Formats: sequence, structure tokens, C-alpha cells
Amino acid sequence: MRREHVRDLLDQVANGALGIDEALGRLSFEPAESLGFATIDHHRALRQGFPEVVFGEGKATGHLVDIATRIGERGEGLLVTRLSSDGAAALAARLPALEINEIARTAYLAPATRTPPTGRGTILIVTAGTSDLPVAEEAAVTAVAFGNCVARLVDVGVAGIHRLLARRDELMTASVIIVVAGMDGALPSVVGGLVRAPVIAVPTSVGYGASFHGLAALLTMLNSCAAGITVVNIDNGFGAAVAASRINHV
Amino acid sequence: MRREHVRDLLDQVANGALGIDEALGRLSFEPAESLGFATIDHHRALRQGFPEVVFGEGKATGHLVDIATRIGERGEGLLVTRLSSDGAAALAARLPALEINEIARTAYLAPATRTPPTGRGTILIVTAGTSDLPVAEEAAVTAVAFGNCVARLVDVGVAGIHRLLARRDELMTASVIIVVAGMDGALPSVVGGLVRAPVIAVPTSVGYGASFHGLAALLTMLNSCAAGITVVNIDNGFGAAVAASRINHV
Amino acid sequence: MRREHVRDLLDQVANGALGIDEALGRLSFEPAESLGFATIDHHRALRQGFPEVVFGEGKATGHLVDIATRIGERGEGLLVTRLSSDGAAALAARLPALEINEIARTAYLAPATRTPPTGRGTILIVTAGTSDLPVAEEAAVTAVAFGNCVARLVDVGVAGIHRLLARRDELMTASVIIVVAGMDGALPSVVGGLVRAPVIAVPTSVGYGASFHGLAALLTMLNSCAAGITVVNIDNGFGAAVAASRINHV
Amino acid sequence: MRREHVRDLLDQVANGALGIDEALGRLSFEPAESLGFATIDHHRALRQGFPEVVFGEGKATGHLVDIATRIGERGEGLLVTRLSSDGAAALAARLPALEINEIARTAYLAPATRTPPTGRGTILIVTAGTSDLPVAEEAAVTAVAFGNCVARLVDVGVAGIHRLLARRDELMTASVIIVVAGMDGALPSVVGGLVRAPVIAVPTSVGYGASFHGLAALLTMLNSCAAGITVVNIDNGFGAAVAASRINHV
Amino acid sequence: MRREHVRDLLDQVANGALGIDEALGRLSFEPAESLGFATIDHHRALRQGFPEVVFGEGKATGHLVDIATRIGERGEGLLVTRLSSDGAAALAARLPALEINEIARTAYLAPATRTPPTGRGTILIVTAGTSDLPVAEEAAVTAVAFGNCVARLVDVGVAGIHRLLARRDELMTASVIIVVAGMDGALPSVVGGLVRAPVIAVPTSVGYGASFHGLAALLTMLNSCAAGITVVNIDNGFGAAVAASRINHV
Amino acid sequence: MRREHVRDLLDQVANGALGIDEALGRLSFEPAESLGFATIDHHRALRQGFPEVVFGEGKATGHLVDIATRIGERGEGLLVTRLSSDGAAALAARLPALEINEIARTAYLAPATRTPPTGRGTILIVTAGTSDLPVAEEAAVTAVAFGNCVARLVDVGVAGIHRLLARRDELMTASVIIVVAGMDGALPSVVGGLVRAPVIAVPTSVGYGASFHGLAALLTMLNSCAAGITVVNIDNGFGAAVAASRINHV
Amino acid sequence: MRREHVRDLLDQVANGALGIDEALGRLSFEPAESLGFATIDHHRALRQGFPEVVFGEGKATGHLVDIATRIGERGEGLLVTRLSSDGAAALAARLPALEINEIARTAYLAPATRTPPTGRGTILIVTAGTSDLPVAEEAAVTAVAFGNCVARLVDVGVAGIHRLLARRDELMTASVIIVVAGMDGALPSVVGGLVRAPVIAVPTSVGYGASFHGLAALLTMLNSCAAGITVVNIDNGFGAAVAASRINHV
Amino acid sequence: MRREHVRDLLDQVANGALGIDEALGRLSFEPAESLGFATIDHHRALRQGFPEVVFGEGKATGHLVDIATRIGERGEGLLVTRLSSDGAAALAARLPALEINEIARTAYLAPATRTPPTGRGTILIVTAGTSDLPVAEEAAVTAVAFGNCVARLVDVGVAGIHRLLARRDELMTASVIIVVAGMDGALPSVVGGLVRAPVIAVPTSVGYGASFHGLAALLTMLNSCAAGITVVNIDNGFGAAVAASRINHV
Repeated sequence: MRREHVRDLLDQVANGALGIDEALGRLSFEPAESLGFATIDHHRALRQGFPEVVFGEGKATGHLVDIATRIGERGEGLLVTRLSSDGAAALAARLPALEINEIARTAYLAPATRTPPTGRGTILIVTAGTSDLPVAEEAAVTAVAFGNCVARLVDVGVAGIHRLLARRDELMTASVIIVVAGMDGALPSVVGGLVRAPVIAVPTSVGYGASFHGLAALLTMLNSCAAGITVVNIDNGFGAAVAASRINHV
Repeated sequence: MRREHVRDLLDQVANGALGIDEALGRLSFEPAESLGFATIDHHRALRQGFPEVVFGEGKATGHLVDIATRIGERGEGLLVTRLSSDGAAALAARLPALEINEIARTAYLAPATRTPPTGRGTILIVTAGTSDLPVAEEAAVTAVAFGNCVARLVDVGVAGIHRLLARRDELMTASVIIVVAGMDGALPSVVGGLVRAPVIAVPTSVGYGASFHGLAALLTMLNSCAAGITVVNIDNGFGAAVAASRINHV
Repeated sequence: MRREHVRDLLDQVANGALGIDEALGRLSFEPAESLGFATIDHHRALRQGFPEVVFGEGKATGHLVDIATRIGERGEGLLVTRLSSDGAAALAARLPALEINEIARTAYLAPATRTPPTGRGTILIVTAGTSDLPVAEEAAVTAVAFGNCVARLVDVGVAGIHRLLARRDELMTASVIIVVAGMDGALPSVVGGLVRAPVIAVPTSVGYGASFHGLAALLTMLNSCAAGITVVNIDNGFGAAVAASRINHV
Repeated sequence: MRREHVRDLLDQVANGALGIDEALGRLSFEPAESLGFATIDHHRALRQGFPEVVFGEGKATGHLVDIATRIGERGEGLLVTRLSSDGAAALAARLPALEINEIARTAYLAPATRTPPTGRGTILIVTAGTSDLPVAEEAAVTAVAFGNCVARLVDVGVAGIHRLLARRDELMTASVIIVVAGMDGALPSVVGGLVRAPVIAVPTSVGYGASFHGLAALLTMLNSCAAGITVVNIDNGFGAAVAASRINHV
Repeated sequence: MRREHVRDLLDQVANGALGIDEALGRLSFEPAESLGFATIDHHRALRQGFPEVVFGEGKATGHLVDIATRIGERGEGLLVTRLSSDGAAALAARLPALEINEIARTAYLAPATRTPPTGRGTILIVTAGTSDLPVAEEAAVTAVAFGNCVARLVDVGVAGIHRLLARRDELMTASVIIVVAGMDGALPSVVGGLVRAPVIAVPTSVGYGASFHGLAALLTMLNSCAAGITVVNIDNGFGAAVAASRINHV
Repeated sequence: MRREHVRDLLDQVANGALGIDEALGRLSFEPAESLGFATIDHHRALRQGFPEVVFGEGKATGHLVDIATRIGERGEGLLVTRLSSDGAAALAARLPALEINEIARTAYLAPATRTPPTGRGTILIVTAGTSDLPVAEEAAVTAVAFGNCVARLVDVGVAGIHRLLARRDELMTASVIIVVAGMDGALPSVVGGLVRAPVIAVPTSVGYGASFHGLAALLTMLNSCAAGITVVNIDNGFGAAVAASRINHV
Repeated sequence: MRREHVRDLLDQVANGALGIDEALGRLSFEPAESLGFATIDHHRALRQGFPEVVFGEGKATGHLVDIATRIGERGEGLLVTRLSSDGAAALAARLPALEINEIARTAYLAPATRTPPTGRGTILIVTAGTSDLPVAEEAAVTAVAFGNCVARLVDVGVAGIHRLLARRDELMTASVIIVVAGMDGALPSVVGGLVRAPVIAVPTSVGYGASFHGLAALLTMLNSCAAGITVVNIDNGFGAAVAASRINHV
Repeated sequence: MRREHVRDLLDQVANGALGIDEALGRLSFEPAESLGFATIDHHRALRQGFPEVVFGEGKATGHLVDIATRIGERGEGLLVTRLSSDGAAALAARLPALEINEIARTAYLAPATRTPPTGRGTILIVTAGTSDLPVAEEAAVTAVAFGNCVARLVDVGVAGIHRLLARRDELMTASVIIVVAGMDGALPSVVGGLVRAPVIAVPTSVGYGASFHGLAALLTMLNSCAAGITVVNIDNGFGAAVAASRINHV
């Protein structure tokens, strides 16, 4: 509630146009409404136009089906991430319209009214190796669900640098680039040095031994010698896509 | 050098319009230029229109002055980061046009021809506490040097959440938001839940004990429960600003 | 045995009212009793009026049933924590009066003589997300078993700050607040800045990647920018509740 | 500003007892006050009756003197923590009424109107060794400044357990106990097993090698086998005292 | 082979009492024997009088049975540690004389000729909690197999310090003390302050969260404020017993 | 494409001996071919004469069989590493010519035309204990597949140093030595002090507790007091063998 | 106070030979004396016959001189460890009889009545390199002060294994062996495999990079493949010597 | 001493050609000589033809000068690494023939008789950035001192990949390549994918924040997706050069 609105309200109270209880109610109600996030009613929920997102990991199958059914009925779309194969089967049985992506471990229910992509450019998702695909696909499914066009560039790790250089055109024309890499996590540094676009690096837990479940790749990316790389959590394809979508909707 | 340019060149050679040595020179130069990073002759250097950037830490004062002088003579602008007070004094003595920022530990030499900001919107830099200011200022100086408008919101940490909520308008209208926080690093999660814009989180080494020189804040930010936050290295105000500038120039 | 009691005893020995062997027995027994922990015969056991507590993890089902049966027969109450589903089934078959809480993974046997809560105020248990519920429920069951009134506030994480602010009244009236959060662990800092009451933060292992099984949330809470937050071990809802009960019984 | 105060204000506006501009001014001030943290204008600041707290580390001496002088003029009291010896000298020169504690590294300015302690019981501060004294003293100074009675028990580490047992009476009568220990950090477990009162453990950075600057003691305390111990950051005597004061004012 | 033995051998060669080939054979055999580890033909194997030791973890059951059978036939005794229940069953079927200890996860085959204990005093094994028993039992079985008398003191953790103090006589009369503790690992510090005997601390992986699988207890013990505590690897009851046996045979 | 080759090409274009499209094709193709990695079409793939390598871990059995079949048809050889037993069975059923090594967890298909080893000397693979054999065997299989002669020295850990010293001749005559060790990882330091040849150290995850899955051995090796030891990732027998093969083909 | 002494006391009270106040005083004093550590009035202090030990690090020079002077006057001996050069100079000026050891950073004041060594055998202190000498010397000075004979073996690291093997006789005849090593920390494993005596390993902070200030050597030693090695804190020569002295006095 | 030499000796004893004392002396001397490392009299010392190496860090200037003078007098060459500027000045004053390299922090004294390089090929030292030069120079000085030809390629980090690709000829013709990189440590992966030669990666401590003093680069290199990269300790240019020299002398 802006200062001028409060003045109006006080004017109305002073001249009797507004009762005290009514005024009191409005002032009491303001803190939430004036903050503008009255519709954020789920801790990962997102604004209108975007689907509800449910983090599937650790949720009982029964609960998951109930939540998905209830949200699905609203017709505003639904994205489930980190879905187990059991959970996927149960959801598919109840909500046949769901699009299950086994590699991405996602389930997506489009809104009743499909709309064309609202993001301006293309989000390019680049992966270092084939083992990084599940994380990359989670990013791709999320980015599409959030209203973006997506392109992919797979298996172009730095140990065979020509594979990346041969695809410069695709790199140069992307609006935002998500680079997914495990093991040494070196790919974002090379990509970041080639393009002007924002680059979001996603470390994956691919590797063994001193990869420490993705810590090595995470540290590599945080210390990138290419200026302006940003990083998300290990295996967080979802978060990278939401960040890319925020950028693509600026 | 794009494929069509090479064809033109070969046409000219075939019809004698271009001598072989001349063509050879151009092609020899191409490997770099055709890749689009011919001017990237420093590992942090950036494309034309942006200033050269020199990382001041660990460089001898003499070397620093030499490098700065040589780059400064080109008239294309120069930004020195992580500058010691000795280094700042030496640079100021040699290049009086340098703008020294003691808090940010930067020195900036504007290009001979100043141009208006090229970024579309405003980059808002938010800090949790006053101790985070040096990192925030490094980000601010960098963002301006890279052609962006900058606004600031200081000392709005989550332990007094009303301070942040009172500034919602500024948060809502920013194009990109950089959130700088040490200690618990909790501020980006709150900001990320309030706005639609891209949020870049910068952990700082402010704190003691189990802050482990910024590790605590870094981990907090990587695990943010607000979707779509991206993170840079501890104390890396420069990198956050370059990322924000990339986004602001999409 | 306080100094005055020893004097009494010596007086009785001096005037023959007490035999030497009898006196020796009492003094020999004293080291424990005078310290006030004669009844502490289990390493997590607690003083009279409180139930015995058994840590269920890693105990064979047979052993667990034997221990629970023996303690249960005393009629002084029993609380089993970190109980497997197998263990719960076995306990329920033997001790039908046990109250099994599957989410909290606890089994509780009320004392033969139920007494009203002995703590002065209400312990409020706040959770950031629904995945934190098992830890929060362990805290709730424990707090009740230790003689406290408990209230709950669920899914009010900082990424949707309005959800928390809308519940200020509950926060303001609590005697002690336990805040349970995984991932970024940011919620206790916000709560700690809103209230005057003691705040106990419980990091949970909810999250993935760089959450490092709760380490990220733990560090966040230890570095809270809200003064006066204290912290317990990751997923230690039991310990938080005992601490809260100690406070509530000051 | 509580709900009833707003109603009063609106009543006064309605009956003309209060002008609109005057009411507007008060309500404008409200957003903070109605949330209950109107006086929290510094990210560590505390509620009325308590002094302002300034974290001295990393602040320039000039800034520190300015801040202290300005706050000091209000007459509501001031506590500076983590003060360097240079900073202490500068503050003492400007504000002669300041009480400098060199061991605690604090400076304290009592409010113009001294009040008797407001906390109900005594906060007992226990230290394992003499090297832990600076952290213990920071806690003591803070607890007193926040309106509590303080007692001390020094150098009673577990390697000579009789020293602690000989002081049982003091342990048993304390309202809250702060246990400060470095190296193995074992003392809180023993104290927590002896008393019913809340126990706050403060790990210190005393030690070398595998103490890793207090990490060893911190982990010990988080894993205490005595139920209901809570922990604060390494060397955080200030935070422990604020937590104890919150408990002592429940 | 000591210097005087070589002189004897050379004397015999010089006077013809020993043939050259015979002498060569002995000397060729010497490099090992003269070093005193000729019988060390397995990387954990031990000197005569002690049994062979086989580390059972990770070995295929078939291999384990073969190795145990071959060593068992020699009649010099055999100790298998870290034995799975499958491995134990297979070994028991083949070598009925084996003594299987399920808690310790060991299998022991006494030498054909049993000898009385060779160590001078008693090795006392103290445990903090009942969950530490498997490690304590591994130590007990090993110590007996290596020719030592063993006594036990269980469940005397520091959270109920009277339980330990009540057993001072046993502590005072032991020749060597092994203290086994998980969680906070605080017990060795208290024991080390009570006795003059050597104290070997064994951290266990008992605990959860910030115990980090025994790291917390390990660090506690390495930083013990009681002088002269030594430490072995997490859960290494075997190693502690061998060290104690070395001391008991000095 | 070297400078002189480009000059030739331009000469041919100038004198009409080469058409423009033909020249364009060659130049376009050059960036890859002139780098010499045109055949590097898999991120672990290697140059002609060496087999293709497939990392088996985490790949679905179906995919693995498809990839192996396709590569196997080329007749240039194939090495699969980190193969599960299921994967091995499926591969063996489809490609009977595959040589499965269960200990090494590898499958090897020799090229259609077998060639004699191309490396100059012998690669000696030394293991500290029998538990290190799987990693050592992976190295052995890889080294042979890459055209090297291999010798083995097993179970010669430093706790029985005579076992190693007795095999000096084998150590002294090797061209390259790979030392595989878990637990304390001390063996490479001793070997590195005995020989002149390059020594590659492979830490293994053999151990428990504070071995932290091979971290202890890794750190030991990185800090070797023998000059000139190099190290690969934990359990990376494959990488050590490729490095040794590079050296053996210098 | 043993049980029979208490009986005597009670007898005396019963027959009037002892007044109640007198008896009360003795019993009050007993808790400490009956435990046998009445003289343990400092957390590192030790039993009669041994000197008082003062940890010099972090103590102000003035305090150090005061403490040392007061203890020195008792004539029972004094050992100061981790002494700065300033502290050493100040102590030497006040207590000329002090024996300063600059390498060990110790100051030692023999008891007024020197006694011959009370330990049975020789404590052998072995060092891997010359940089480990300060820690080894701290151990040597401590061991002598605690009544032991000491021998030394220096610079016999495993990278030149012959140096160690050439000194087998000294190794074989020692009663206890302290092995001091930084960097890879591999020496204790070799020594532990050669001898029957107890081996105490001391990791030192000698090294750089991935030695992480002694962590690498610490982990190596904890994972030693030689059975029965025990370990103390990084750089803790003092603790190793006290442990060795405990063993040497069994 | 090989078997046939011992037979000769025994033959001579048997036929009286050799006295017993003489034979005894030779056999006693053998253990060292027969192992072939009789000349390894310093723990980093190297075989004839190579210079003695002294690790300068942590050595007192006086000691350093004494050691260097004594070794220098032998005329066999000397290399001092990690030399402070004070140490360098002192050494230069005493041994004017020393070649001081301030960037590498080395001092080198050539042998009295200089010999041409003995290594077969060229060791190429590649650096990612100018801040890595000190480590690269230490490697270069060491490689030359050990008898190798050295070439350099500086400031070719992956953020400007064209800089590296433009120098392919130098990469392809090197016998061994040492790649020195801090920050993200990504360069060795790219180089390893381009060449067939052995690649030794040296992480440096260049960076800040989450570089954790070189840990990030170390982990990157250990997890390199290019097969056959080996790694040395952080900042260990010396070790990388010795390893490269071993390879170059195979």
C-alpha cells in the first residue's frame, strides 16, 4: 500500500466515508497484498502463466498422486521433477495426459490452454558427455514448460575441443546457454570464452573418486577463468532452466 | 571469418584481384578472427566496446603500472580489480585520469570516447550488511564500466526483514539483481522469492568461525529454496557484474 | 548429598544413632546420589517425571522389543526414536498401548499416570518445507512426551516470505521456537529477527548436491545474522525438543 | 504497532483528535513497528531496553568512532564487540565513559538510566581452559549488557573432572549455562549430563593441528551424547549470551 | 641374521664344515630373516606365536574359505576380521573349530597348542554406549587372540559421568586402556585424566548428521585435552587391540 | 594445415589448378583435420591403432550392447571399462569374441588384425595388497589393449618391506611403473625412491573410516617425499595405464 | 579416599576420636583426593614426580613469566611448550636455571632434586626429514622431563629406504618408538612393519599444497597398513612423548 | 650384491683367498650397496649426474648457507628450491657462481663439468595465466638442471581457446608436456585431448574464494575427461619437472 493510498484511506476515515473497522481490515490485510506475492502459495510455486512445480524426491507415491491430481484439475499446468520410476507409473495411470520423460525423470502436464513460447530467444543446452544427459533433459523439459524455445548440443566435452568449435554458429546465436558437465567441469570455461550470451554452468555428479559426487565440477565452475559464468547446485538442471527462463523473459 | 568471406577471398585470388601473400596473411590471421575472439588477447579481456580488465592481485606494482600504461594509451578503457593501496597510489601517479575506488579496490580509466550505457535496464546491487560493501562496490564499478546503469540497496539483511520489504518497488523494477551477502548468505533466497528478474548471488567472506571464509554463504546460495538463483565465486563482485551485464545486453 | 546432609549423617554416627556399616553404605552410595543423577542409568535417559528414551537406530529388533518391554513394565513412560518400520511393527505387536508415529519414526508409551504438561509456555515448531516434516514431528512427539504444549507452523520457507509474515501472531506468542529447515537453512535467520523468544535451529538433510546431507543448512544456521540463534545436529529433532523443554521448564 | 493501537489512531482520526498528516507520519513509521521490529534499524540491533550492538571487526577506526559517537549520544547504551586494540584506544579517547574490556575485546557504554537486571536467574559461564577466557568474557560482558546476572566457573576441563564435580552447587543453581571449550570440546557433554538447565555450548578456536580452528570442538558439541545441548558458531561468545538472555527473559 | 651368526657361518665355510651351496642358501634366505620379518609373508601377518590375520571385507566367500582352510591347516591359529554373515556361515561349515563372534564380526581359530596369555597385565576395553559394542568386541577378540587378558567396562559415556567414576578401581588397575566411543567421542579425555596407564582411543562411526561417519569423534580424540592419548582409525578395534598388545608385551 | 600447405592451395587456386569449391571444402575441413583429431569422435576415444573405449558405468545395458556392437563391427577394437556383471553377460551373449575380465570389470575386443605391442618397454604394475587387484587389473587390461607389454608385482605393501626389496630386479628393469595402493597409500614413495623410471601412483578406495574412500591414499601420493611421482584419480587404473602407454610410446 | 579410609574415619567419629567438623572437612576435601588427582590443578598438569606443564602458545609474556615463576618456586620442575622467542627471552631473564631449547620451542626447569630416569627402556624418536626436527625435539625434551631415556634417528624417510634399514638394530632395541613425519607421512607404516614395539606416529605440518597443513600425513598414519600404529594430533610432539612415557612406565 | 658375487666371495673364503673379517665387512656393507642406492644420502637426493636438491622453505638462512657451501664444494651441482629473498641474498653473497631466479625462487649451481642435455626430447611447459609463472619457472629451472631441453608456452588459458590452438605445432612436437594452471584448472584437459605425448598437470594456488588455495584446480585435473593426464601436488613445479625428466630419460 503506497503512501498516497494510505492518505486516501485516512481522508476517508476523517470524513466518515470509511468506517474504522473497514479501514482497520484494509490496513491489516495490506502487508501481504502490497507485497504482491499473494499467489505464491507453494514454496516452489511460480507466478501465473507458469506451471506448479512439485519436487518428487522423497515423497510417498500416494501423496504425489494426490497432489498432482489436485493441481492437474486446475488446468494451469504441472511439472514434477526427480520422479522415481514407481512414481512415474502411478502418475501415468491416474493422469494419462501427463508427458513422462524417463531420462529427465520428469512428468509434465501442459496447461489446458497451450500458449506459444513467451521467451524471446533460444535457450541452448550444451552437455560435455552422454552421462550428463539426465540433468540436461531436466533442464530442457523445465525450460519448455516455462515457455521457452530450447536447442541442444550434446557430447562436446573439452577433451575433443574440435567437436565444440565445429558448432560455433549454434553457440553464437543462442540467447542463453546452459552448460552441463561432470568430471572436470571444464566445458563452461571454454564456452564462456567463445560467446557474449549469459552462460549458466550446471555441475553434475558424473564421475568417481575425487569427483566427490560433483564437488570437483562445482569448484571448477565457480573458479572459471572466463568472466561472467554463473553456477547452480550439482545436478540442478531444473534451477538452471528457471534461471535461464528468467533471463529469457527479462 | 565466415564461410562466405572465405569464398569471396578465394574468388579474388582466382581472378587475380588479390595477391597470394595478401590472401595468405588474411587467412593466417583468420583462425583467430573467424572464431570471433581475435581481440581476446588477455585471459580476462573482453570484446570491443568493453574495457580491458586487469586482475591486480599478486602483480608487482611495476608490472601493473607498465601494463596499465600500455593499455591506457590505446584509449579503449581499462579496469583494474583487486588493487592494493600501494598499487592504487602508483597507478594514480602515472595515470591521473584513473578513477580510484578505495572501497571497491578498483581503478577505472574510461575510454577516450565515452558512450552512454548500452544495457537495457538497471542492475540493482543489494547487500545484506555494511561489511559486504567492498564486494558490492566492485560489482557496481564493473557494471558501470561494462555499460550498465546501476542502483544500490544496502544493509537489508534478513534478520530485519522489514528493511527489505520496504524497498519492494526497487526490487520489482530492476532488470537484473545482484545480491551480496556473507555470514548465513540467506538474503538471495528471500529476494529470489519476491522478484521475477534474474538473481545472481555473491557469497562474501564476511564472517568468522564456521563461515569458513565464505564457504557457508556459498553453500547456502547453491541450495537456495528459491528457484532460479545462480551463484558466483566467493567475493567475486567482478564476475557477478559481468554476468549481469551479459544478461542486460541479451 | 549436600554438605548439611553429610553433617547430619556424621552427627548420627557420633551419637550412635547410625551404625558405621550403614553410614558407610550411604556414603558409598552418595557419589552418585549426591550428584543428582542416580537415576541416569541409560546414556540418554532423563530424570524422574520424564520418560526413558531409547535410540532405535542400529538396534536389533529383538533387543529393542526386550528393552521396551522391560522399561514399559515400570510404568514411567518410554520414548523410542529413529525407529524402523520393522521395529515399529514388532513393538506394536508386543506393546499395544504404544503410540506409533510413522512420520516421526517414534513410539511413545505414556506413563501409567498421565500428568498435565509441566512446561510454562508453548513450544512452536516451524518448518520450511513439507520434506522437513519427519524431523519436525520427532521434535513434536518428544516435546509432548517431556511435558510441553506444542504448536506447529508448516511450509513457511523464505522463498515465499509472506507465508511466514502472515503468521506473526503465532510466532510472537510462543515461549520457545524450533525452526526446522533443510536446503539453504535460511528460515531461522528470518524468524530470529522477528521474535524475542529463544530460537533453536534444526538443519535437516533435505536437499541434494551441495547440500552435502545437511551440512549447508547447518553452516547457514551457525552463521545466522540474527543474534541468539542456537543450533543442534542435522536431523536432530529429538535434541531440539529436549533443549526447548529445558528452556520451557526453567 | 499493535492492532489496538491502530484502532486508537483511527478513532482519533475519525473524531478529529488527530490530523491526517500526523496520522500518516505515525503509520508511515508503522510498517516497521507494526511488525514488531520498528527499532531494528541495524542488522544486529536489538529491541528497546537493550543496547545497540556494533560488530567491530573489519570496520575502519574512523567509521567506528563516528558510529559509536552517534549511538552514544542517544543515551540508550552501546556494545561494541571484536574490537581491535587500536579501535579501543580511539573509542576511549572520544567516549571516556566507555568501559573497555581488553580480554573480551569489547567496549560498553551503559544507558543514561541504568536499570537493574531484568533476567530472572543467573547465567553461569563455564570455561574448559584459561585460553577460552576471551570468548567467555565476551559472553559475560554481553549478558550483563542485556540485563542479566552472570557467574563464572573457569578452567574446569574434563581432563581433571574433579574440578568440575567440586562445583556442582553452582551448576545446579544456574538458570542457563554457557559452556565455552576449545580443543576436544568435551565439557558441554559432561555439564549437560549433570544439570536440568538449558546448556549452550560455544566451541572456541583454541587448539592446533586437527582442531582446524575450532571445527573439532564444534563437531563434538553438535554430536553431544547429552540430550538437549545447543550450539553456536566458533568463538561466538556474543551469540551465546544473547541466546542465554533470550532464555533468561522468557 | 645377526653379525655373530654370519661370522659363525663364515668360520664354518673357512674350515670346511659348511659347503658353499649350503652357505649360499642360508645367506640368500638371510635378507629377509636378518631383517627379522622372514615370517611376515602376508601384509597384515604377524610374528610367530601370534595368529595369521585375514581382513574379511571385500573378499569373495570362496577365496576366504580357501585362505582360511590353508592357514588353518598349519595349526598356528587364524583370526578373520570384518566378516560378513555369509562369510561366517561358509567358514563355520568348513572349519567347525572356528569360534564365530557375530557382534565382533570375527572368526577365530586357536593354535593347535593353546598357550596361556603372554601379556603382563590386563587390557581394559571401555565403551561409551551400547552401539559401540561391535568395535569393542573386535578389539576384545583380537586382544585375546594376541595373548592378552581382557576386561570390559560398557556404557559409561560422559553424559552420565557417575557411571564411569563408580568404576575407578577397574580403571586404575588396568595395564592398558582402550576407550571406544562414537558421537562426541568425549570419553577418552575423561579417562585419560583419571589414569596413569596408556590410553588408546577408538572413534566409532556411531552417530548421524554432523558426526560424519565418525569424523567428529576422531577429531575430538586427536584434540583431547588429556595429555598422552593416542588414536587409531575410525571403527578400528583390531588396530587398537594390536597396539595395546604391543604395549602389554613391552 | 600448415602454412606452406595453404600457400600451395592458394597457388593452385591462382593458377586454376584447383576450383574454388574444392578449395573451400578443403579449407573448411581443415580446422579439424589440421588439428589431428578428426577421428576423435568419442570423448574418451583415441587415435587410430588404439581401440575405442567405452565407460560402462551408468549406461543402460541395452545402450551398451548397441554401442559395443556398432563399434565392434568396425573391426578396430573396443575396450569397455567399469562394466557391471549384468552388462558383461549381455555383451558376452552378443559379442562372443569379447574377452571378459571379471576382476578388472572390463570387456575387450581385439582389432580384426592383431598387431604386436608397439610400446618400447615393459609397464610394471605393482600392488600394495590383494584388495587393490581390481584397479590393477583394469590398468593391466588397458595397457595391453593400448599396445604395451605388462608385468605384475602383487601384495608388496610397505608394512612388510622385504617383500618389495626382494623384487628389485623387476622394479629396476621396468620402463614405466604403475603403483596401486589403498589405505595409507605409502608404497609409491618407497618405489619412487628405488627406481629411475617414471612412477604413476593410483590411489584406491580400499580401506574404511578415515580413508574417506581413497582420499587418504590420494593425499599421501600427492605429498610423496620421493621426487617425480605423478598421481591419477582414485581407482583410475584405466587412466594410469593410458598415461603409462603415452610414456611408453614417446 | 578409599573405602577403608572412610571406614577408619567413621570409626574415629563413632568413638569420639575425631570431631564432626574435622571429619566433615576431610570428607569435603576427599572427592578430589580419593579420585587420585588432587594435584591435577591445571588441565595439562600431571601427577607428582612429573613437572608441571604450561602450554605457552597464546599466553601473554607477562602472564607466562608469572606462572613460571610461581611454579618454579615449588621446586618440582616445570616444562613450557610452544614458547615464542620473546617468551623464551623473558623467561630466561627471570629464571636463569631454565634450559631453553630453541628448536623444540621449550623451556625446562629440572626439579630441585634431580632423579634418574624412571622409565624402563629407551624411547626412540625417528624423523623422516630435517624439517620435522622441531616436533621431534619437543617430544625428546618432554620424554626426558617425564623421566625417560631418549635416543634419536633422524632423516630416514622412506624415499631412501636403505637409510632406515641400515639402522635396524636401534629400531629393534627400543622400548617405544615415536615416528615423526610430514608430507606423505609414510614412515610409520614401514617402521611398524619392522618392529614389535609400540609405535606412536606424529604427523607434522611440514609440506605445502595438498598436505593441508599436516592433514595428509595424519590420514596416512590413521590408515597405516601396519597393524597397531597409534596416532596423535598434528605437530603434537608433546603428546606423543607423554603417551610414550605412559607406556614406558607401565 | 648379486647372487653370483656372493658365491665368488664364499669361494674365496673357502679357499682362503679372503679373510673372514674382510668378508664380513663386505657382506655388512652389502645391504646398502646391493640395493643400488648407496649414494642416496639425502631424502630428496638424486643419482649421480643430477644435482643435489635442497628444499629451502623453513630452513634458517645460516643452515641453508652451510648446506649449500658444503654441497657446492663437491662440484656436482646444486639446486635450491622455494628460496626466500633473504636466503637468496645470503646464498648469492657466499656462492657468487649461483644462478638466482627470483620468479622461480630457485638458486642453481651448475656442476664443475657442464654436460649437454641428456634427455631425448623437449619438455614443453604450458601456463594458463601469467600468475602461474612462478610455478612454471620452478619447473623450467628444475628440468634444465636435470639435463633436459625446455620450451615455454605462456598465457594460453581456455577462456581464449584460440590462443592455444594457434600453437598446435609446439604442442605436437614436445616429448613431454607440463601444464600449469590455477583457478579452474581446465587447461590440461584441452591439451590432453590435442596431443599424444604424456601430459603432467600442475595445479597452482592462483585464485581466491572457492579455489581453496588450489584445491579446485587439483580436483579438476584429477577428474580430467582427457585420458592419461597425471597430476602432482599444488604448486609443485619441481616435482612435475622431475617426473618429466624421468620420462624424457626413459
